[in-house]
Amino acid sequence: MNILITGGAGFLGQQLLRALLDRGTLDAGHGPQAIARIVCFDQTEGAIIDPRVRNVAGNIADPSAVAALVGPDTAVVVHLAAVVSGTAEADFDLGMRVNLDGTRNLLEACRAAGHRPRLLFSSSIAVFGGDLPPVITDATEATPQGSYGVQKRIGELLVQDCTRKGYIDGRAVRVPTVVVRPGKPNGAASGFASGILREPLAGQPARLPVDPSTEMWMASPRAVVRMFLRALELPESAWGWNRVLNLPGLVASMHDEMAALRRVGGEAAVALVRHDPDPAVVALVRTWAARFETARARAMGFEADADVDAIVRAYVEDNPEAIRLRA
Amino acid sequence: MNILITGGAGFLGQQLLRALLDRGTLDAGHGPQAIARIVCFDQTEGAIIDPRVRNVAGNIADPSAVAALVGPDTAVVVHLAAVVSGTAEADFDLGMRVNLDGTRNLLEACRAAGHRPRLLFSSSIAVFGGDLPPVITDATEATPQGSYGVQKRIGELLVQDCTRKGYIDGRAVRVPTVVVRPGKPNGAASGFASGILREPLAGQPARLPVDPSTEMWMASPRAVVRMFLRALELPESAWGWNRVLNLPGLVASMHDEMAALRRVGGEAAVALVRHDPDPAVVALVRTWAARFETARARAMGFEADADVDAIVRAYVEDNPEAIRLRA
Repeated sequence: MNILITGGAGFLGQQLLRALLDRGTLDAGHGPQAIARIVCFDQTEGAIIDPRVRNVAGNIADPSAVAALVGPDTAVVVHLAAVVSGTAEADFDLGMRVNLDGTRNLLEACRAAGHRPRLLFSSSIAVFGGDLPPVITDATEATPQGSYGVQKRIGELLVQDCTRKGYIDGRAVRVPTVVVRPGKPNGAASGFASGILREPLAGQPARLPVDPSTEMWMASPRAVVRMFLRALELPESAWGWNRVLNLPGLVASMHDEMAALRRVGGEAAVALVRHDPDPAVVALVRTWAARFETARARAMGFEADADVDAIVRAYVEDNPEAIRLRA
Repeated sequence: MNILITGGAGFLGQQLLRALLDRGTLDAGHGPQAIARIVCFDQTEGAIIDPRVRNVAGNIADPSAVAALVGPDTAVVVHLAAVVSGTAEADFDLGMRVNLDGTRNLLEACRAAGHRPRLLFSSSIAVFGGDLPPVITDATEATPQGSYGVQKRIGELLVQDCTRKGYIDGRAVRVPTVVVRPGKPNGAASGFASGILREPLAGQPARLPVDPSTEMWMASPRAVVRMFLRALELPESAWGWNRVLNLPGLVASMHDEMAALRRVGGEAAVALVRHDPDPAVVALVRTWAARFETARARAMGFEADADVDAIVRAYVEDNPEAIRLRA
């Protein structure tokens, strides 16, 4: 079995790639099959070197580059490539090219391949915005209030339609805010939710630009990768016609995060967080959804993290080199 | 004031054009202003000749053709150009080019103009599909089950985002099935709802491909044009952030239509309708929404037709040359 991961060199892509290599098999509808090849496509080559991995650098917005990625032996496609929320908001054209045209290019390549590849699209809870109910359910309308969320919602609609037309076997999952995102801050407007854990644990100062009571819907990278694999392996009958799904997560405030930080990193870590409100971020975060009732996903067997402590402990276990402070 | 109508040579475009010429003024936020020029853009030149009308033939999917349509003096844009539902379903590429790329081209032209033109986007109740509640409300999620509806929903999202970004002052209205559509049948899958009135009134046979109990959400061309003008003239404050609206209509069954046909065209007209189910049409129509509660639009002053008889009478008045049978 051959697999393509777009945005594969990103941190979630690399974690998914590692998980696939460790498993060695994937069931994409014909029972568990050995993974022969994973094409890792991104702007730059991925860091994981393995005989089964082919790292390809290119531009998802370039139709011919993308057409070359999907062949008759590409059984599974995982579409992670995207510019993040802050970047898509700051550069409208770039967001449209990468997030919209890139997705269209990939769907077109799958359609041209002709064998109806199974495709997982990483969408986002950023599709929700506007006048939201206190709790988002599976029936809540997606009325995004940012260009990133708009582009993700459009991608979902296209994945849904290409599935209905028989071009792909598509699944789109709305990923909660990923916490703790390792490495350097990226352009995601939600980045502080990771930053106030990651930086203090590394002995570095961090800024909290919103009120500590601010809640977010979050999941650890481990949980997201586990849910990606489940989304890929579930049979079509479990999805039915509706190929768009709100993933489970957990609701936690920035205060909850700091309490977990205290338990894992000690008072010295918490002291590195400086509360310094940024009106622009406060206004943006206010439009985000924090509380979800994900009945459909839970019935389909998707599971979130147990609690914020589990999220922080998983980060410490997975990134020992990045930890300077411990309680 | 200069106005651009895309799809202006179509029947709704021509009725809107005629209504604008008859009024002579439009209020697009600065009080009623004289309409100096209406650019009527379509694949072919429009039939209405008037000193204020400039007929332009071109392809909405061609970015340079569309860029040339919007100038610094274009105060208002009405975007009607689209391939209809049956055509978008039969030719996926054509639907994507015209309905998605065409809309993007137009929004890009408006953005490039730089003065934030007021733009009305003609969307459709075809954005609804899937597991629908018995009554569609303003909060019902749009999960379209046809490529046309998907493309219209994407257009709404782009209009919404370009409004939020300050590129346009956009308004998107979901138009009910238009009954009675004059002239020849087009590629719209809903065409029979007009056909079983239009053809018998002209003394021609018509096919009813669904059960007579089948209900549809409909509005007359007169009502739609009236609602288009209201959508254009309402101040931004009446719209708020949400620039997508379900328009009022009335729910009527094909049986209701035939009863109205009997009252207007007599028994001879009804006898020309042959019930001959088409499983493909039956299956498609089953996914459509028929009953709506349009509280928001009604609060904004939008009004539907009084009843089916009013719809049929309006058609007879507006198209005397097409009527052969009268009760």
